[in-house]
Amino acid sequence: VKGRLEAFSDGVFAIAITLLVLEIKVPAHGDSLVPALLGLWPSYAAYVVSFLAVGIWWMAHHIVTHYLVRLDGGSLFLNLLLLMTIAFIPFPTAVLADRIGRPDEASPAAVFYGLAMALPALAVLALLSYSRRSGHLRVEDYDREVPAAIARHGWIGAAINLMGIAAALVAPLVALAIFAAASVFWGVVTARWRPAAAT
Amino acid sequence: VKGRLEAFSDGVFAIAITLLVLEIKVPAHGDSLVPALLGLWPSYAAYVVSFLAVGIWWMAHHIVTHYLVRLDGGSLFLNLLLLMTIAFIPFPTAVLADRIGRPDEASPAAVFYGLAMALPALAVLALLSYSRRSGHLRVEDYDREVPAAIARHGWIGAAINLMGIAAALVAPLVALAIFAAASVFWGVVTARWRPAAAT
Amino acid sequence: VKGRLEAFSDGVFAIAITLLVLEIKVPAHGDSLVPALLGLWPSYAAYVVSFLAVGIWWMAHHIVTHYLVRLDGGSLFLNLLLLMTIAFIPFPTAVLADRIGRPDEASPAAVFYGLAMALPALAVLALLSYSRRSGHLRVEDYDREVPAAIARHGWIGAAINLMGIAAALVAPLVALAIFAAASVFWGVVTARWRPAAAT
Amino acid sequence: VKGRLEAFSDGVFAIAITLLVLEIKVPAHGDSLVPALLGLWPSYAAYVVSFLAVGIWWMAHHIVTHYLVRLDGGSLFLNLLLLMTIAFIPFPTAVLADRIGRPDEASPAAVFYGLAMALPALAVLALLSYSRRSGHLRVEDYDREVPAAIARHGWIGAAINLMGIAAALVAPLVALAIFAAASVFWGVVTARWRPAAAT
Repeated sequence: VKGRLEAFSDGVFAIAITLLVLEIKVPAHGDSLVPALLGLWPSYAAYVVSFLAVGIWWMAHHIVTHYLVRLDGGSLFLNLLLLMTIAFIPFPTAVLADRIGRPDEASPAAVFYGLAMALPALAVLALLSYSRRSGHLRVEDYDREVPAAIARHGWIGAAINLMGIAAALVAPLVALAIFAAASVFWGVVTARWRPAAAT
Repeated sequence: VKGRLEAFSDGVFAIAITLLVLEIKVPAHGDSLVPALLGLWPSYAAYVVSFLAVGIWWMAHHIVTHYLVRLDGGSLFLNLLLLMTIAFIPFPTAVLADRIGRPDEASPAAVFYGLAMALPALAVLALLSYSRRSGHLRVEDYDREVPAAIARHGWIGAAINLMGIAAALVAPLVALAIFAAASVFWGVVTARWRPAAAT
Repeated sequence: VKGRLEAFSDGVFAIAITLLVLEIKVPAHGDSLVPALLGLWPSYAAYVVSFLAVGIWWMAHHIVTHYLVRLDGGSLFLNLLLLMTIAFIPFPTAVLADRIGRPDEASPAAVFYGLAMALPALAVLALLSYSRRSGHLRVEDYDREVPAAIARHGWIGAAINLMGIAAALVAPLVALAIFAAASVFWGVVTARWRPAAAT
Repeated sequence: VKGRLEAFSDGVFAIAITLLVLEIKVPAHGDSLVPALLGLWPSYAAYVVSFLAVGIWWMAHHIVTHYLVRLDGGSLFLNLLLLMTIAFIPFPTAVLADRIGRPDEASPAAVFYGLAMALPALAVLALLSYSRRSGHLRVEDYDREVPAAIARHGWIGAAINLMGIAAALVAPLVALAIFAAASVFWGVVTARWRPAAAT
């Protein structure tokens, strides 16, 4: 199962990350092309930030499945929920790209984006905590390194995300920068979590 | 063959499940964003229900291929038919999302969705029954566990789907809940069918 | 190389076959839903015929790569050309679905579709003939079974395709049936070519 | 990690290359179909040129990962950047297809395309140079063959791309031919770089 679950999950991550480009729309005829292409900066920014986020979640998913020694119906279901939050990301990305350049709508769009970005984290926590209670985790590795790191990094990550959502209310572009920073933070943390055995 | 058939099939499942997000459309400009995003609840609901369905079918497909010890032209063709019904799901999902909020059209949209959801079940039955008659099933496992379960669960699943279609005629949202319940039912059943050897 | 080439090629086949559903458009509001869904029969027909075609080409590709014992720049390039013809199929499919219900435009749409369907065959022939001249084919298997089959089946397949294109000029729906028959023909032939070692 | 990184990367390449077909739009009703299909030559040309480019980059990526013996956070991040530039290609391709037939906008569209086509090269260079400094390259192979080839071919490739961008200013179709030639150049070079061990 695990091999095919990883292949299926990798497929969903790879497709979700590649579909992000579809939110960047060719400028309508009539506009002069150079300013129109430059005017798409919100689309480019949203593309970059979401691409980083999905890529980092893919890395995190790889580590989580490393710790799973057994899968049952519950963990398959929670993994499916996680994939559901990942495959959803192109939509808030498109909303953000479409509205962040419009003063009166940038704030709700960025708040929506920040909320959507918190969903995969909740799904990963649910998957880890279910698997731990079911005794399906590679405990010798897991107990030594990960729970403390989750406690520590999880709170930091949640704090960054909340800061981003708060910033979205007043300065949506700052919020976007904070969401990008959150991905970089998780990227660094994830690279550190990576157990020797998974290298 | 089997390895590449599984990889190809997993690819189709992963792509179909990830394309579901494309039915959620960015609200048009002019609408206020927050109510517009909330007003997309039919799209979110259709996304969740179809995502569960495709995910459960993926798990069921994994179990079915576990029982197949040999593939011939016939089983490859029936597997292709199954994939055809899976890859089709984004369309009834988009129809459902587009019409379930409209009183006069919600019923036919939900009936159409329910009919489309029955197609993969028919294709799986055809694949299993062909493979059994051709002697391509891992009989020692299969005969002990599966046929009675298919008889029992198949009738329950068909009954749930028919209840959903009947409900669609009078209360489309109830129908949607019933289709979601059908996925949960199949998820539980599928997790139970999973033979020890496939874990 | 071969493993990753197969994985990459399988990915392209799986994505192209799953993108076919995107040509089926949700009916516009204002039309009554049931007749509108029934009126989409050209889209359903085009979906089924193209799905079969891409699925059969996937099986044929699997057999072709079985015979390739070595890959060089030339065979990688010709494989890329083959994938280019496969990934193109969603476009003639969408054209066919959009026009086959319109009396004055059904013929050119079906001719275009038939021409596009001939491209993968030409690419496979180029790949096989290049690989043979380069001595990259598993000759002991290949020389015994395949060249005579290609000569025999290739002419039959080309004749079916030409009949389809000719029929397209006067009876586009008959042409569509012929293109479907061509896929079934290739499916049967491909299942027979399958060498024991590839099972 | 390396196996799943390759699978994930192959997935992104396969999806990006297959999404290219979505830029070819079914002609609007009202136009006569045959001239309308012929009038889509810019879309066909952009499809072919970008398909070759992504395909060649896939081959180049395969060789680069062959040389990587170890992955750390930095190389995973740079690989993600490379994938970001590849998954972006459908957008400049769609811009080019949409504008290269319009005299006043073909030049900026082709320049934009040429700039986008340079991004994967920069990302590959960054990945190789980072990995070299970190000692993560299979040095015995790498030092003997590759650095001199990169120096030599990299300058030639950059020169071809710059020629293409310069040509775009005056003759956008010539530029498109030059970008196609660049892919062929890299295809030939890549086939030569392929180390024996990766065959």
